[in-house]
Amino acid sequence: MSTSPTTNAPAQFAGVVPPVATPFLPDGSLDVTSLERLVDRLVTDGVNGLFALGSTGETAYLTEQQRVEVVQAIVRANAGRVPIIAGAIELTAARVIESARRLTAEGVDAIVVTAPLYALNSRDETAEHFRTIARGIDVPLWAYDVPVRVHSKLPADLLIELALEGVIAGIKDSSGDDVGFRRLIAANAEAGRPLRLFTGHEVVVDAMALAGADGVVPGLANVDAAGYVRLWDAAGRGDWDAARAEQERLNRLFEIVFQTTGRSPDAAGVGAFKTAMQARGIIDHATMAHPIEALDEQAVARIRGILDSLELVGAPTP
Amino acid sequence: MSTSPTTNAPAQFAGVVPPVATPFLPDGSLDVTSLERLVDRLVTDGVNGLFALGSTGETAYLTEQQRVEVVQAIVRANAGRVPIIAGAIELTAARVIESARRLTAEGVDAIVVTAPLYALNSRDETAEHFRTIARGIDVPLWAYDVPVRVHSKLPADLLIELALEGVIAGIKDSSGDDVGFRRLIAANAEAGRPLRLFTGHEVVVDAMALAGADGVVPGLANVDAAGYVRLWDAAGRGDWDAARAEQERLNRLFEIVFQTTGRSPDAAGVGAFKTAMQARGIIDHATMAHPIEALDEQAVARIRGILDSLELVGAPTP
Amino acid sequence: MSTSPTTNAPAQFAGVVPPVATPFLPDGSLDVTSLERLVDRLVTDGVNGLFALGSTGETAYLTEQQRVEVVQAIVRANAGRVPIIAGAIELTAARVIESARRLTAEGVDAIVVTAPLYALNSRDETAEHFRTIARGIDVPLWAYDVPVRVHSKLPADLLIELALEGVIAGIKDSSGDDVGFRRLIAANAEAGRPLRLFTGHEVVVDAMALAGADGVVPGLANVDAAGYVRLWDAAGRGDWDAARAEQERLNRLFEIVFQTTGRSPDAAGVGAFKTAMQARGIIDHATMAHPIEALDEQAVARIRGILDSLELVGAPTP
Amino acid sequence: MSTSPTTNAPAQFAGVVPPVATPFLPDGSLDVTSLERLVDRLVTDGVNGLFALGSTGETAYLTEQQRVEVVQAIVRANAGRVPIIAGAIELTAARVIESARRLTAEGVDAIVVTAPLYALNSRDETAEHFRTIARGIDVPLWAYDVPVRVHSKLPADLLIELALEGVIAGIKDSSGDDVGFRRLIAANAEAGRPLRLFTGHEVVVDAMALAGADGVVPGLANVDAAGYVRLWDAAGRGDWDAARAEQERLNRLFEIVFQTTGRSPDAAGVGAFKTAMQARGIIDHATMAHPIEALDEQAVARIRGILDSLELVGAPTP
Repeated sequence: MSTSPTTNAPAQFAGVVPPVATPFLPDGSLDVTSLERLVDRLVTDGVNGLFALGSTGETAYLTEQQRVEVVQAIVRANAGRVPIIAGAIELTAARVIESARRLTAEGVDAIVVTAPLYALNSRDETAEHFRTIARGIDVPLWAYDVPVRVHSKLPADLLIELALEGVIAGIKDSSGDDVGFRRLIAANAEAGRPLRLFTGHEVVVDAMALAGADGVVPGLANVDAAGYVRLWDAAGRGDWDAARAEQERLNRLFEIVFQTTGRSPDAAGVGAFKTAMQARGIIDHATMAHPIEALDEQAVARIRGILDSLELVGAPTP
Repeated sequence: MSTSPTTNAPAQFAGVVPPVATPFLPDGSLDVTSLERLVDRLVTDGVNGLFALGSTGETAYLTEQQRVEVVQAIVRANAGRVPIIAGAIELTAARVIESARRLTAEGVDAIVVTAPLYALNSRDETAEHFRTIARGIDVPLWAYDVPVRVHSKLPADLLIELALEGVIAGIKDSSGDDVGFRRLIAANAEAGRPLRLFTGHEVVVDAMALAGADGVVPGLANVDAAGYVRLWDAAGRGDWDAARAEQERLNRLFEIVFQTTGRSPDAAGVGAFKTAMQARGIIDHATMAHPIEALDEQAVARIRGILDSLELVGAPTP
Repeated sequence: MSTSPTTNAPAQFAGVVPPVATPFLPDGSLDVTSLERLVDRLVTDGVNGLFALGSTGETAYLTEQQRVEVVQAIVRANAGRVPIIAGAIELTAARVIESARRLTAEGVDAIVVTAPLYALNSRDETAEHFRTIARGIDVPLWAYDVPVRVHSKLPADLLIELALEGVIAGIKDSSGDDVGFRRLIAANAEAGRPLRLFTGHEVVVDAMALAGADGVVPGLANVDAAGYVRLWDAAGRGDWDAARAEQERLNRLFEIVFQTTGRSPDAAGVGAFKTAMQARGIIDHATMAHPIEALDEQAVARIRGILDSLELVGAPTP
Repeated sequence: MSTSPTTNAPAQFAGVVPPVATPFLPDGSLDVTSLERLVDRLVTDGVNGLFALGSTGETAYLTEQQRVEVVQAIVRANAGRVPIIAGAIELTAARVIESARRLTAEGVDAIVVTAPLYALNSRDETAEHFRTIARGIDVPLWAYDVPVRVHSKLPADLLIELALEGVIAGIKDSSGDDVGFRRLIAANAEAGRPLRLFTGHEVVVDAMALAGADGVVPGLANVDAAGYVRLWDAAGRGDWDAARAEQERLNRLFEIVFQTTGRSPDAAGVGAFKTAMQARGIIDHATMAHPIEALDEQAVARIRGILDSLELVGAPTP
């Protein structure tokens, strides 16, 4: 990895960078047409970047070949308009590098990876994990902090240390630990801002923007990207009343993920997003990756009710 | 997967089935010579099967190509003497199947897999995960229950259900939950013994044999396979005093894994095994997979002291 | 606390020491008559000691006054026949001592306490917690290791250290960690056996006896004490086939705790015991402490079915 | 508990309500003089209420008699100037009520309690726990959500349900789950605002105020109450730049809790607060409750350095 400021250019990512959902056809194969339409709509709505192959993109369920096809479609539909960061979710460094290289070959601008999965490593081994990956790829590397899936939290001092070494350029924080995120913002400022700090929690973007976040990766933007763009713009001009009002509207929309019972976390979240996206005409099918269970009809009806109440059906773009 | 009793022949695995360590050269590449020597010694010492690419085999750190090379060496050195089961540790079913097929093509007799990693699934989705994999491979499938790495426990009723469907043929239980394992033994007996039940905990083999376990996957057998063979034989003939005495001797040996401080779980366990194996002349180097940190000299000295006290240095086979 | 071998006499506790259930009248007040009958039956059935005010005794739900009344009834009904150990479950040392002194004033022979609750302490602070309590009471102190309720595990080396200091005389292990318990047995033997080691897991008593446990605290003995006495006697004379057979019979009985759904752990366990005790005529009511929810009728029917199948209804003593 | 709007007057608590630290003399006894001085200073600095006997107040380590003495001193020093809420931290409802009544007899205006400790209850049992306590006391009841100590999270729908029943009047949220807190704010607004919602996280007060919190319980206010009063005032008038600037200053101060290593969470947090309070002349000794370990000299020196850098030594009030 080059660590020169020029190529390791974290400044390119800021603002609203949605984790792009992966549409499927009813037979379980990739729905490339819907994916391209989704990407075009996101960019048209004004997002500042695209996050391919994240948890919302169901990347854990995709084969390596499918991952490449997803990235190809996103790159093609984006047509160079905004930067693209892609997840390379694998167990350990050597495997991550193999996966990441397939994705950078398709033209993504950065790679985001988690701490090791399945392995049980020390802090120093985790640091070396990121260093090894950074050396093995030729685009900027981001760290993805998602303890609910990885089962360990990336410590702030480790992240700052790796940033100052030029190993990582940004963080996607889905830790649900706002106290820790606030400390990370302060530590990053103290260190001269080597990191771009993105929150993954779509319901507190106003608050995290006030606290100093550089951007947000909102899964819900697959349903209403324009709302997040307005929210981020309001925060950017210091209009906190407007930011909060938009956030509260989006939070009423976010209630779609709580409309099902007895489903897994993966089903409830992505299932709600896809159901709403289909209702808004953004994708053709709400199918999820095998073996994720589809939402039941009652949940679908309630989700449509929420969309109706927010006047979001039939009007995908503002 | 064929579910006929003939091909899905779980009875072939019973007794001592060590998880084969993966030796490395100092430069980090596979040490095939040491691996073949290790396999030959294990089989000569009387083990009843071999478990390739488990946690002790550092499989999480290996690329797909390396996994294939490890299995090739084990198959070659075993030369058909005992059955081989191989781990296919990947995130989800589609990816597991791709990995498993590479291994079965090399001649392994069964595949063992965990619940999904990184994904957040329901009980039913987890069941479907195993069903999908069983359909995708042509050898018996085992389930690997290792909550410390997977962060969820496989429920006993799910395992019995999958067994009765012909989906899984056995369990490697590394859950550390002896109460749950005892209930599983009882439920399996009630169901007509569709499952082979192996414990992964090398320090309670006498007790688990008394409770009805069908076998054991002892990482420590890489260091002293003959001891586990004697222990299992004693249990098999109902000589519980002899079984306990052998277990207690092996437990003194197992203290090697507690001789280091400040190292990760992966380093402490496999590092101790490899240090002792090298001291006994079983492998040439104690190198672990990158980025696992080597044990410090004090720990190595203490491990050698334990081997000395048990008269295990310089006498690898009894 | 005197640390002289004479008064700190851990040897008095060995074998089967049931955690005595606390019967209630339908109005929620203590059912002293049933409690005395229960105690008399346990002692008549041959148990080697009594554990008052444990989790099975619903001690967390009792006021200090009720705790004293429970101990008074147990002491009275026991009439000096077997030694009595009582739980003093409180947040921290100063509060534990106040509670413990009320119980020792009633004549209990030992006190058992957990690590601090609610507080967030270091290893050294936890050690000092036990030392402070030992200094504050004049009977032997035991440590109760129950991570599912205390949310931390007592490390083996800490327990041995405290034992060698004369601070603790025994352990009630409900950690569900048989590997750790086995290591504790070995470390205790190495240290000259300063500790009495009891398992709290009633379904693996044969295995833990083989491993070297000094006794067992089986909640299920409230339902069938005679079975545990037979099991322990068989283990004591080295008749492991008989021990295992009795254990397997008791484990079929233990299935009563799995017959309810949608109830809390406290309701499912104690509720099943009390339902079975009532069915066998040992106590008059299956009432649990407020606000624990009663089992539903279906669960009660299934529990009675299990008792029937084991020929345990209407024949409380062998 | 009266549920009439008049006596159950949650509106009285709003804004900055510090959890009052409990000073000790070097011999471990209560330092009533320092406690009264602390209370007077907090009220003089403009706090809107006082939270007695919280985690910061080391209430877990106090006997019942000491808890009463602490409340007496706080009531006396406050002299009716601001409302007082007191923690009644005990295992279960019957025990909580006994403790709470001792405190309300001394004149506190509200009681705050956690979910059951040690017990393992269902959602419905937990609801009944709060209902029983509310019936047993004659002041408003608040719920304290602190999973790091209680090991379960209070679900938002349960809290709203209890609020609509008139059982609870407010929440102290120390869950570290800002997403959940945001949803609770929205649900409370939807329900007509039956609850007062306070955050316990002192480093995100600006953000939580923007999100709609009614107040904050900042442990750090024991060191710099005036800062929190300024922060809350700025937020109240919508001056988010000023609020953020004050928050960032306070967060630099909060770094005092990270200056020690190898100490328990209880020692690191309260120890840092007391060290800084002593340095500022607010209390006479930094002694913590037995057996919490004192901070080492290096940590104390670093804490003083932070105070110096913020010009907080020798100037306790602005």
